[in-house]
Amino acid sequence: MSPPEQRSQPIQAPKGTRDYYPADMLRRRYIEKAWRDVSVRHGFEEIDGPTFEATDLYTVKSGEGIVSEIFGVFSGKDEEQVRAAGTGHAPFALRPEFTPTLARMYAARAAQLPRPTKWFWQQNCFRAERPQRGRLREFLQWNLDFLGGADAVEPESSHLVGDFEVLACCVALLESLGLTSRDLRIKISFRKAVAKELARRGVQEDKHAAAFELLDQLRKVTPQQFEDRVAELGLPRDSLNAFRDAKPIPMGDLLARPANDPLNWLAAETQQWGIFEWCELDWSIARGLAYYTGMVFEVHEASGAERAIAGGGRYDNLIELFGGPPTPAVGFGMGDVVLSLVLQDRGLMPEGKALLDRLSEPGASYRPDVFVISNGTPEADTRLRPLVSALRRGRLHARHTYKATKNIGKILKEASDAGARFAAIIESASEATLKDLDGGTQERVPIPEVGARVAASR
Amino acid sequence: MSPPEQRSQPIQAPKGTRDYYPADMLRRRYIEKAWRDVSVRHGFEEIDGPTFEATDLYTVKSGEGIVSEIFGVFSGKDEEQVRAAGTGHAPFALRPEFTPTLARMYAARAAQLPRPTKWFWQQNCFRAERPQRGRLREFLQWNLDFLGGADAVEPESSHLVGDFEVLACCVALLESLGLTSRDLRIKISFRKAVAKELARRGVQEDKHAAAFELLDQLRKVTPQQFEDRVAELGLPRDSLNAFRDAKPIPMGDLLARPANDPLNWLAAETQQWGIFEWCELDWSIARGLAYYTGMVFEVHEASGAERAIAGGGRYDNLIELFGGPPTPAVGFGMGDVVLSLVLQDRGLMPEGKALLDRLSEPGASYRPDVFVISNGTPEADTRLRPLVSALRRGRLHARHTYKATKNIGKILKEASDAGARFAAIIESASEATLKDLDGGTQERVPIPEVGARVAASR
Repeated sequence: MSPPEQRSQPIQAPKGTRDYYPADMLRRRYIEKAWRDVSVRHGFEEIDGPTFEATDLYTVKSGEGIVSEIFGVFSGKDEEQVRAAGTGHAPFALRPEFTPTLARMYAARAAQLPRPTKWFWQQNCFRAERPQRGRLREFLQWNLDFLGGADAVEPESSHLVGDFEVLACCVALLESLGLTSRDLRIKISFRKAVAKELARRGVQEDKHAAAFELLDQLRKVTPQQFEDRVAELGLPRDSLNAFRDAKPIPMGDLLARPANDPLNWLAAETQQWGIFEWCELDWSIARGLAYYTGMVFEVHEASGAERAIAGGGRYDNLIELFGGPPTPAVGFGMGDVVLSLVLQDRGLMPEGKALLDRLSEPGASYRPDVFVISNGTPEADTRLRPLVSALRRGRLHARHTYKATKNIGKILKEASDAGARFAAIIESASEATLKDLDGGTQERVPIPEVGARVAASR
Repeated sequence: MSPPEQRSQPIQAPKGTRDYYPADMLRRRYIEKAWRDVSVRHGFEEIDGPTFEATDLYTVKSGEGIVSEIFGVFSGKDEEQVRAAGTGHAPFALRPEFTPTLARMYAARAAQLPRPTKWFWQQNCFRAERPQRGRLREFLQWNLDFLGGADAVEPESSHLVGDFEVLACCVALLESLGLTSRDLRIKISFRKAVAKELARRGVQEDKHAAAFELLDQLRKVTPQQFEDRVAELGLPRDSLNAFRDAKPIPMGDLLARPANDPLNWLAAETQQWGIFEWCELDWSIARGLAYYTGMVFEVHEASGAERAIAGGGRYDNLIELFGGPPTPAVGFGMGDVVLSLVLQDRGLMPEGKALLDRLSEPGASYRPDVFVISNGTPEADTRLRPLVSALRRGRLHARHTYKATKNIGKILKEASDAGARFAAIIESASEATLKDLDGGTQERVPIPEVGARVAASR
């Protein structure tokens, strides 16, 4: 809280959150639209839940430790809730991620839901941590999850369908934003194979979760810190070195291996799904969360410069943990913060008219369709308002100037700066000059026909 | 918090919040799209801010009393914040409304912003109150605001432009959802005229805010409670009766009044803006909030059955209160809860394919464009996955069955139930039968042409 003497200072947005002015919002909507469009095209259906949930929903999956990493929420009306907040364990928390809500929702209706259930979600999440490059306290996230699927021909290959369908959808999103397999790598690993190898190297099963967590931090700690931590956990001295030192293996190398190699199928599947070029096998990918059970993956910049752009994997036990039936499941999450940095660094964020065009929908062109101008005579002036209203009712984006000027050249400049496609200059009680601001042509048309002419040119 | 013995029960969503399964989410997106489309067509630009703000941002405008009506938010990591939460005054609060954020954002950049600045916003708000019909703890809201405008020809009429532009945009939204002026009434009043009348009836100026608040509760209290409250506030006995008993006056009646009637202009303006039929003058409309300075309005069901669907007005002093320059401003908010009830009661919420069609965009048809089916031969089976991938890459919404069945009739039924426009049955390594599921026709096409045929029919 600010002390009283600071009250006269303007109040700032909370640290680690963002104000979106119109230009910022257009860029945000561009990413959100890309997420939504690609999800819909792949047959995923959108869901959402509350912005805050019972704190217990998060401790179920992540333990009490999560309480110090989340924002507590309580009703100011309820004394018991205020008291609980004072202990640090508020009754509610701002969602740090969506997966617990998804698991709760799936478990509640598991019997009625289709198999597979294909869901996507794109909203905001909150983390009570120090803001830094690529990491904010409020951020947007896209989740894609493929749950169930026991009706499929072969249960085992039905798992694969989900694994590769979410991977393919992730690639389609990246491609739709102009990114290529030269910019980014999808790094794939397998929890069970790693666990088997850990066991072979003498790591006890009760230490596997800690080993995965440590591997997940590989890129964030020094080699010495890594060694110290291995010792601290009481893991055999060199047991993690093979993972630490693993080089990514391109799909092409896997395909070149003998046909009986247990990883040949991975290369073959990525070929079938058209994502061969994007993927590589990388044993150093661990994913910190304990709940992954099979394939895990992360999307990284080819240079390795930024944090992961996306990450996910198979989590076949989670729905049960939330009271649902045993349910195979696979999914991933992608935040907006690192993705935006990558797009901006590569000049892939559209601007100006190109951005407005990308956001336009049948019901709303973000570029003004027509900018209505009076030629300055009183009879034209009185026609301006009704024409603008009629055009908007006809589902066109219509604007006019709010300036006092009668200088048509200046107003045409304003129209053009706003990105308008046409200007309609009212010349009399019955006629207007319709100027195509993109093409440069113009024609005289009856006022009642302005809307139809503009609509026809879309 | 749930006591430990309840932990094995499934955790519920917090009371007064909503889970959106896919069918719920489509209805929500329908309303959100209507809000966005109409805002964009009227030249408003979208903004957003943080989901939680400094608690002080809300007490500035509404006083300390607001603290017991909002959800407090604090970082579980920060001991000082936990302590503050325990006093009931957490450092942050979930936004109960967007206007304080808008005022903060406008004040921070007032000098660089265009005149007028036309902003819209549509996100969620939170209120710590008992959930009841038409009122939830988390709900969606659409705000439309018209700020500044001092460059316009006549400063006074520039105020009017904003007032009527937001009213017209509100009407356009209602019309776009299929509502008519027979379903709903826009009730308009004027704070200054009411204040003048209150003064004439002996209400001291320092009691005007309380009088407005009491008038705002007119429909929610009994006549006796109303009288008691008038006495409690020490207002002259019958000073509010004229407002309480006021009958709405249609615009037609105003227009019929003598030309020197001070309210003739209101009817004339509503005519110019094409919203004459929707509006009526209603002196009983007060709006509780103290910050309104001019025109105020509410949108009500014609029957008066539900709470207000929308409400707003002119607030010329608010930007200054948040540290900005003097700025004329007018705007309104519309929530999704009452609006949804009204649409559902009237059968105006589209369903099935009609709803999917309304949501579709150039980049994503919510109805599947094409459902790909193998004829069951091994050579067709191997073509299914690559064809689905290629169609999705070509920006089409493509699906296939996950079921084990080879019964084409059953799969066609699944395609049709999903609302697919076409089914493509792979007949060989090179050809498919393309069935138009809407029109009933079918033709044989080479597999590489399936996408182009489907896209051309959009």
